[in-house]
Amino acid sequence: MQVINIGVLGLGTVGSGVVRILRDHQNKISSITGRKLVIKTVVVHDLAKKRNVDLAGINVTDKIDDLINDKDIQIVVEVMGTVTTAKEYIERLLNAGKHIITANKDLIATYGSELAELAGKNNCDLFYEASVAGGIPILRTIVNSFAADRIVEVKGIVNGTTNYIMTQMSQNHVEYQKALQSAQELGFAEPDPTNDVEGIDAAYKMIILTRFAFGMNVTLDDIEVEGISNVDLEDIKQAKELGYNVKLVGIAKLINDRIKVSVGPVLIPEDQPLAAVQNENNAVLVTGAAVGETMFYGPGAGELPTANSVLSDIIAVTKDIVLGTTGSRFNDFSREGKQALATEVVYPYYISLRVKDRPGQMLKITEVMTSVKASFHLILQTELDDDYARVVMTTHKMSEAQLTEILGAVAGLEGIDVIASYKVLPD
Amino acid sequence: MQVINIGVLGLGTVGSGVVRILRDHQNKISSITGRKLVIKTVVVHDLAKKRNVDLAGINVTDKIDDLINDKDIQIVVEVMGTVTTAKEYIERLLNAGKHIITANKDLIATYGSELAELAGKNNCDLFYEASVAGGIPILRTIVNSFAADRIVEVKGIVNGTTNYIMTQMSQNHVEYQKALQSAQELGFAEPDPTNDVEGIDAAYKMIILTRFAFGMNVTLDDIEVEGISNVDLEDIKQAKELGYNVKLVGIAKLINDRIKVSVGPVLIPEDQPLAAVQNENNAVLVTGAAVGETMFYGPGAGELPTANSVLSDIIAVTKDIVLGTTGSRFNDFSREGKQALATEVVYPYYISLRVKDRPGQMLKITEVMTSVKASFHLILQTELDDDYARVVMTTHKMSEAQLTEILGAVAGLEGIDVIASYKVLPD
Repeated sequence: MQVINIGVLGLGTVGSGVVRILRDHQNKISSITGRKLVIKTVVVHDLAKKRNVDLAGINVTDKIDDLINDKDIQIVVEVMGTVTTAKEYIERLLNAGKHIITANKDLIATYGSELAELAGKNNCDLFYEASVAGGIPILRTIVNSFAADRIVEVKGIVNGTTNYIMTQMSQNHVEYQKALQSAQELGFAEPDPTNDVEGIDAAYKMIILTRFAFGMNVTLDDIEVEGISNVDLEDIKQAKELGYNVKLVGIAKLINDRIKVSVGPVLIPEDQPLAAVQNENNAVLVTGAAVGETMFYGPGAGELPTANSVLSDIIAVTKDIVLGTTGSRFNDFSREGKQALATEVVYPYYISLRVKDRPGQMLKITEVMTSVKASFHLILQTELDDDYARVVMTTHKMSEAQLTEILGAVAGLEGIDVIASYKVLPD
Repeated sequence: MQVINIGVLGLGTVGSGVVRILRDHQNKISSITGRKLVIKTVVVHDLAKKRNVDLAGINVTDKIDDLINDKDIQIVVEVMGTVTTAKEYIERLLNAGKHIITANKDLIATYGSELAELAGKNNCDLFYEASVAGGIPILRTIVNSFAADRIVEVKGIVNGTTNYIMTQMSQNHVEYQKALQSAQELGFAEPDPTNDVEGIDAAYKMIILTRFAFGMNVTLDDIEVEGISNVDLEDIKQAKELGYNVKLVGIAKLINDRIKVSVGPVLIPEDQPLAAVQNENNAVLVTGAAVGETMFYGPGAGELPTANSVLSDIIAVTKDIVLGTTGSRFNDFSREGKQALATEVVYPYYISLRVKDRPGQMLKITEVMTSVKASFHLILQTELDDDYARVVMTTHKMSEAQLTEILGAVAGLEGIDVIASYKVLPD
């Protein structure tokens, strides 16, 4: 059987998983591809570091040139992370004719189009299924199975760390800091959790999903991003009483043929499939004009799930090599995209306020709502402490522009502070 | 732009949807495939019948030869249903070099391997994504995204009719007959519902899923099939009180490298994603050795969802035509499969009994359980009417062989009848 040699760049969690699965499932992979896939060389940063995966028969080196100059290596898996260095390496590898598989979402979100063009020029494949929602095969599914449909919305829980934290807060009523600490102890959160808890990681994934679902390019600056570090346990409890789970959700939505992408805490009605996604799991809900709502659920991270997505890319490249069809884009859907206007992005909202307990406060809030033509669905007052009350309301649908006006006006009121304003997903 | 001509065989719900989507999403499809896809000819049974889809510019005929002998037609979509005639037509079309897309699960479950071989000989594609779980792209996902993994279990709600009925019984406490009638009125159930409610339709889908997930061929005779027509509303209520939803679930599971496929009512713990699948929706849960649990959720039927799956097949064929790579199998994973033994298929069970109210009855039941070394997890007695009590128990894990022994022994006891014995899915 003909051999296809593979290089791996980086031997962290995912890299080790790739080595492991490729060895464990050798026979099945060969029976499908008609080729023997062999990891020939692994490039690591620190040669001295002890590894907990069997590397027998594999060259281990710290020189990228050992991949670039090895004519026998056809496919390189980049799982080293970082943006600048990884980009430089991948460019050199593509120019040397190597097909690339990467799990690097920051890189693909930022330079995906540029790298895809370079790959095409060199007749190389560039795949990155593992970059979004680890073990869920969402990118290839959008490419293959929604090609004939018109996707109108993609929304999802695409960050396992924040979903773990929100699940702990919601189910066990622990405060944010304690939930974060437990996530760190379990390895679901990094020592510096900023990228996850501030929604940046989810935003990168939404950039990639938006490109696949709508053919449109958006950048981090186009996305309204709010993290979970300020989420108050009281709001989670309050939402629960109203029948909602609060989760960090990324939403990319077509509105009048313009696009709106946002990441933030959102109230999801309890009986919806997305509300049932617990702990470190991910789920992506794709709504097509024809097909309606479909949901793809699974592990969002972890050694073997993510490595499995890398492997599915390796097999796709191998098939392309065998058939002589390499060099076509992972996502070949592309169109001009404009940002939706703040006046046309419309949701019901959950707003919670800290209100100094004195006569006439509710009247002021009502006046603000009326002045921007917004209306309540429900309003609740609970005691916060001696001097302050918490006022919680859910509104009827209103535009982002209206919300901004309301929050601005409330900020100008003495003795009233906004604690939270979250989108509410429809029933 | 080059044109690819398509023929459609049958113009029912799905056929009309295919005509509609292909016209509505023409531009997107062309931008992805680089070809203009045109429906040239539609073959119908009754030329006089009025159609509620615009057929302008399409030849409408009742002669299959108008497809077979038309050299311009490269792809034929078979959505006419039936097995014998459809098989004959597809064989003639394949021998004439036409690529085939079908939504015909009965046909593919029964003759899929034979037809795949004939397609290969003629260098033709044969795709059937729409045959399982309508709008959910489950087959292509298994092929593309689990190729490197070892799937250990596929289970799912793959019949919308029965899931609608079970949801109504569970949520609105209506009896089976009334729920069936409402399903028929809403068009979710056929006038003759036998195939759906007796689990045959689900079994056909499990045959196809088993082939894709495990590479193994099973026939209807290999599958333990139980429908829902005997499900008692009391058992659904009782299960609910114990924290379970009862649903018709198909399970294909690898046990000691042997396969066990079954279809029947099953108790699913309420907090599991599969338990939340309501009404006519479908969901398939795939467990991979590496990736763990993933779930694919969406509409199981309907004009546009099913037509969208047909369209994704049409686009896949078109890409193959453009790249010159037609003739490879939809599912190229195949291995020898043996049936699991009754002694190694192990589940906890829910058993409900109708027991004549007289002293010593519980002792008899306990003696039966003890004699086959099975044990209770829980046992409940409720009154049925003056003379009879209902005894409900959940057991610890036991084998099918043990269950068969218990049911046999109980059948021999005077005044005790088995109402139901259902598998209980683990937490």
